[in-house]
Amino acid sequence: MAVSFEILFKSKENAARVGRLQTPHGEIETPVFMPVGTQATVKALTPEELQDLGVSIILANTYHLYLRPGHEVIAGFNGLHKFMHWDGPILTDSGGFQVFSLAKLRKITNEGVTFQSHIDGSKHVLTPERAVEVQEALGADIIMCLDECTPYPVSREYAQSSLDLTIDWAKRCKEAKRSERSVLFGIVQGGMYKDLRVESAERLIKIGFPGYAIGGLSVGEPQELMNEIASHTLPLLPQERPRYVMGVGKPENLIDLVAMGADMFDCVLPTRNARNGQLFTRHGAINIRNACYISDHEPIEAGCSCYTCQNYSRSYLRHLYMAREILSYRLNTIHNIHFFMQLMKEIRLSIREGTLEKLRKEYCV
Amino acid sequence: MAVSFEILFKSKENAARVGRLQTPHGEIETPVFMPVGTQATVKALTPEELQDLGVSIILANTYHLYLRPGHEVIAGFNGLHKFMHWDGPILTDSGGFQVFSLAKLRKITNEGVTFQSHIDGSKHVLTPERAVEVQEALGADIIMCLDECTPYPVSREYAQSSLDLTIDWAKRCKEAKRSERSVLFGIVQGGMYKDLRVESAERLIKIGFPGYAIGGLSVGEPQELMNEIASHTLPLLPQERPRYVMGVGKPENLIDLVAMGADMFDCVLPTRNARNGQLFTRHGAINIRNACYISDHEPIEAGCSCYTCQNYSRSYLRHLYMAREILSYRLNTIHNIHFFMQLMKEIRLSIREGTLEKLRKEYCV
Repeated sequence: MAVSFEILFKSKENAARVGRLQTPHGEIETPVFMPVGTQATVKALTPEELQDLGVSIILANTYHLYLRPGHEVIAGFNGLHKFMHWDGPILTDSGGFQVFSLAKLRKITNEGVTFQSHIDGSKHVLTPERAVEVQEALGADIIMCLDECTPYPVSREYAQSSLDLTIDWAKRCKEAKRSERSVLFGIVQGGMYKDLRVESAERLIKIGFPGYAIGGLSVGEPQELMNEIASHTLPLLPQERPRYVMGVGKPENLIDLVAMGADMFDCVLPTRNARNGQLFTRHGAINIRNACYISDHEPIEAGCSCYTCQNYSRSYLRHLYMAREILSYRLNTIHNIHFFMQLMKEIRLSIREGTLEKLRKEYCV
Repeated sequence: MAVSFEILFKSKENAARVGRLQTPHGEIETPVFMPVGTQATVKALTPEELQDLGVSIILANTYHLYLRPGHEVIAGFNGLHKFMHWDGPILTDSGGFQVFSLAKLRKITNEGVTFQSHIDGSKHVLTPERAVEVQEALGADIIMCLDECTPYPVSREYAQSSLDLTIDWAKRCKEAKRSERSVLFGIVQGGMYKDLRVESAERLIKIGFPGYAIGGLSVGEPQELMNEIASHTLPLLPQERPRYVMGVGKPENLIDLVAMGADMFDCVLPTRNARNGQLFTRHGAINIRNACYISDHEPIEAGCSCYTCQNYSRSYLRHLYMAREILSYRLNTIHNIHFFMQLMKEIRLSIREGTLEKLRKEYCV
């Protein structure tokens, strides 16, 4: 198996665990947050900067890379790692989520989904087999089954048929898998229906995957409902396998979900918000465009050890942001990624020390 | 004096010289090319990257910084160096050029120029005294007299009155100067009229400055005319003072002007063109958006030692450019700045070795 998972420490207070995920491109300590590198670049940063920030695995988006530059171009480099000059672990999603959220004129059948590119309107078909083929060409360490991310709110009937489709596609993805250099994770759906989450998890486990993701969370539902469904679903997944909550999330979500037993996360929050001027601190997020920062000589957060806080004032960062300078996106992204990496480091430590609840109070004001 | 200039080597073949400019923020080997950091940032790069690329002095634009964030904000940091985290030498222009090229509803009198901000339409007055005051607040090592950059083509009458105004303003700038931490350079105008260039240089030298710039070149005139006026004007300037040709230029311009005795240059060419996908090589410039690069595994230029060429293919750079990724601007800018710094290094070496003519053939295909 290309990826192995070992649990190093289990919390006595809750379901949290510290683990180690071994991949062909290196070791990942879990719980882990994966910055999103949609188009084979984590926006604004170099691979060396990611490494310096303590990023151990990144996520890339199959939909975008399939459309541009095309997976064949990347296959010519033997995959994403060489293409983008990142030799650490990579996880690719299946492309399904973006087909449903970005593409135009999509039509879904049991066979797969046809859609038009949001870039040039060209017509494409994504099937489970194709999703695996494209991801294998991209050469990620962890690849994902094609699924339908069940929207919120939906009827029980919709959630059931979406779940049936996702299970059928999961089987076909597993059968389509060829490459030895990556492992395929299954995705639990079922919307906000607890019994459907049970059904989805059971049928997925029956097919059998080296890792399991929970999809369809953080899709617009209230936070308590997300936590309710997550805390219901996470224990259904095998203890000895990594559990990945897709598309989440905010610092408080990460701490909550870790306590429920989640191991992996991805979200555009730190990178996208950085580009919008929203910077994370332990005392809440600030927006650097705020006029109160025009002559503020302090760093974003006193005591922060990131490159940005070590060398630049809020005043300068506000100026760069207002002037739409490229350096603004860089410095803001460095700070936010540092913040998330630091949070995950403290989460891992807090699990071992039994202080996760205390950490939650520190971070979530 | 805050800045001193020493000539280390004089060419026997031509008027080229290698020199050393000593400033409060460090030493500069001349001939030198100054990358443009318009808004207190050389677009897309950090100060550390500039340093690694061998950049020894940068130019910042007074007009932009006066309008945003305002020179008082920067004065609160004791100047640009601390504000932007660059502790090397800085030269600021007077703001005049941008008032004439960017601002709206400008009205010029002997007193100065009134204009409206291109950002928010607010009304401002720039006088020679104000230009010096603002630049002193910005705290650059070298500051420039307010001048009118004579356009091309203009009548002899226009060029004469523009020259008279510039000389009058130069006197007033010198009188207005207060700070000891910077030196003030004068600017020769006179359009494409050789006798006016003589008059401008003579009157300026009579006022007396520690360095002289030639303005009003590369403003749309044919290249031969630029060279003709430059080769006519440069010998008029004192041997023992640094000579700065403003707003130039292309690699071949730099080599030509160095041979005529120029010491300093600035231009947006390497940075702006990088952001437009135009990348410099010894075999001419290439545009990375060209479809021929889609699967090209080679670096921009074989043998180039820059970070971009060491780690990324044309294929990846084309992908980043087409996807308008921030990393595209970064990697392209690194390459182009490296190219210009390498060129200047080779120019300095070629002067000493008497091989400037050979270098011209190598670079200008």
